[in-house]
Amino acid sequence: MSAPTRIAVDAMGGDYGPQIIVPAVLDSLLKDSQLRILLFGDKQNIEKFLPESTVRCLYERLDIINCMCAVESSDNPIDVIRNKQDSSLCQSIMALSQGDADACVSAGSTGALLMQSMRLIETLPGVKRPAICASVPTYHGNVSLLDLGANLKCDANNFHQFGVLASMKCNLVDGIENPSIKLLNIGEEANKGTKELKAAAELFNEDKNLNYQGFIEGNNLLTDPVDVIICDGFTGNVALKTAEGVARLAMGIGADIVRENLSLRLLSKLFTKSLSEIKSRLSPTQHNGAIFLGLNRIVVKSHGSARKGGFENAIGKANLYAKRNIINLLQPKLAKYSWMR
Amino acid sequence: MSAPTRIAVDAMGGDYGPQIIVPAVLDSLLKDSQLRILLFGDKQNIEKFLPESTVRCLYERLDIINCMCAVESSDNPIDVIRNKQDSSLCQSIMALSQGDADACVSAGSTGALLMQSMRLIETLPGVKRPAICASVPTYHGNVSLLDLGANLKCDANNFHQFGVLASMKCNLVDGIENPSIKLLNIGEEANKGTKELKAAAELFNEDKNLNYQGFIEGNNLLTDPVDVIICDGFTGNVALKTAEGVARLAMGIGADIVRENLSLRLLSKLFTKSLSEIKSRLSPTQHNGAIFLGLNRIVVKSHGSARKGGFENAIGKANLYAKRNIINLLQPKLAKYSWMR
Repeated sequence: MSAPTRIAVDAMGGDYGPQIIVPAVLDSLLKDSQLRILLFGDKQNIEKFLPESTVRCLYERLDIINCMCAVESSDNPIDVIRNKQDSSLCQSIMALSQGDADACVSAGSTGALLMQSMRLIETLPGVKRPAICASVPTYHGNVSLLDLGANLKCDANNFHQFGVLASMKCNLVDGIENPSIKLLNIGEEANKGTKELKAAAELFNEDKNLNYQGFIEGNNLLTDPVDVIICDGFTGNVALKTAEGVARLAMGIGADIVRENLSLRLLSKLFTKSLSEIKSRLSPTQHNGAIFLGLNRIVVKSHGSARKGGFENAIGKANLYAKRNIINLLQPKLAKYSWMR
Repeated sequence: MSAPTRIAVDAMGGDYGPQIIVPAVLDSLLKDSQLRILLFGDKQNIEKFLPESTVRCLYERLDIINCMCAVESSDNPIDVIRNKQDSSLCQSIMALSQGDADACVSAGSTGALLMQSMRLIETLPGVKRPAICASVPTYHGNVSLLDLGANLKCDANNFHQFGVLASMKCNLVDGIENPSIKLLNIGEEANKGTKELKAAAELFNEDKNLNYQGFIEGNNLLTDPVDVIICDGFTGNVALKTAEGVARLAMGIGADIVRENLSLRLLSKLFTKSLSEIKSRLSPTQHNGAIFLGLNRIVVKSHGSARKGGFENAIGKANLYAKRNIINLLQPKLAKYSWMR
């Protein structure tokens, strides 16, 4: 029997807090008898959402650690680090860094979570900066898109390191043989884009361990069957949010058309079902949970707007990364890179 | 009777060339008896698309200027400037710069068009760099989005100048009183984003002539009722193409659902109509024609994939800008800015 996975969960983050996080935690414990959860937050608030009737044995694998405060979405990350070390967000990363947990999940402030992670957890050998990497649903399946906001500006080495890490992640976790990689740019031709991207393309072309396939433009972001797309954190954040917004807008216009059109209104159940199928195929919240790739511990960020199912997905991802032992497997694989030394 | 507007048109640009550009030119001439067009390109090829039957008087307002070569989409802009000055693209900008035309329209290489424009045409007084500005359809109407690729990196002054120019353009051409402006960023809070964006926000806040309303995120790009959205050319290009791609993808998934679902297939005419309504409300090609804002002449870039109707829209925009006399009206309005002096 394998050792249990211990996940530190911040109960207070996101738009809904314990109301959706506690049920997500209980369902995760129910589905995996090898899982233990350390739940950080306001104990009194958390206990409101713990039903009496739940199978007793679940509670044996749930430790609630009372925290004196919570991080608000309006809090400045620097102030959080300075003044809110006793918050559920900071404490769950602390537990991870001290080896009390194998992974950490939070739906709280990305900036604070990243800053606390970089303060207490080292990067993998040779890696300069971690990147936020999400698995984004596309027409053909999923693409690992990074960086989504940890590094607003990137140099060629950052881009290359993101590609190496994401390629290994896809191989170790998603089981993809020789994952294909593209760089997000404003054109596909080699002379397009910033000098950092052109220099990165050279590093990728020289790296025979990677399956680099050139530049990709925004219009193909969700339709190209590529496995990994690399960009700086500013561009990735804007592109992913734009994609989410347009998908939601298409849904909204669809709903308008149903309302305005009598014959469609009569069929609206059928139409609504089709529209939610579009939504579910395009909505990133269905694939919730982004990893801070490049740290030597597993930190998973849940979307702030995730509900129970979404948060459960994020716990599931942290669990999968831990079970696949991704950190220990990445270390020797990284050793072949010169920036390791 | 007002003076005729003379528009220089590059007949050889875009994916379809004279086949769609010549009919678009003829329809534009038909609709506006005050319009003259100077059509640059391969005369023999152009004449293939000039019907014998067309009203004679149209041809009196059409001058065809034979050009020895055309710019290919694979051509490097620098090579175009060095070796293809006799191309239809370069010649039409040349005619504009020499005062033979009041505006220029091309569907050719954006890079070459921009480089030739900046080589032969001055920027408006005090303006450092022009920006590519398109009117993008949104849920509420249209938003002027810039820059879309002329400046991959921008400083705070660039951002501010784009805001000033776009605000004036919206007022003079679109008739919007006190146009609202936002800066595209990765969060709405003041502490979010790059140092250039934070510094730009300060310039915007200090400028009492502008109706600046803060940061906007990608997810609200097409749903916020704001009039102008400012960003650097890299981000704008990726965001707009991503929005186009996702809108097309939503259409594609909608079509898949129709195919897979018998009851919907029976209703597919109705469904297809609704889907094309979604498409027409989201597709930027319906609002084709981006202006190089900040030059002291009117240069309009058509989407390379535009068909006849789209190219006609681009000619229509150039015509509107010329009729509204935007360049002469911008000059005194800019005079209040310190960077004029």
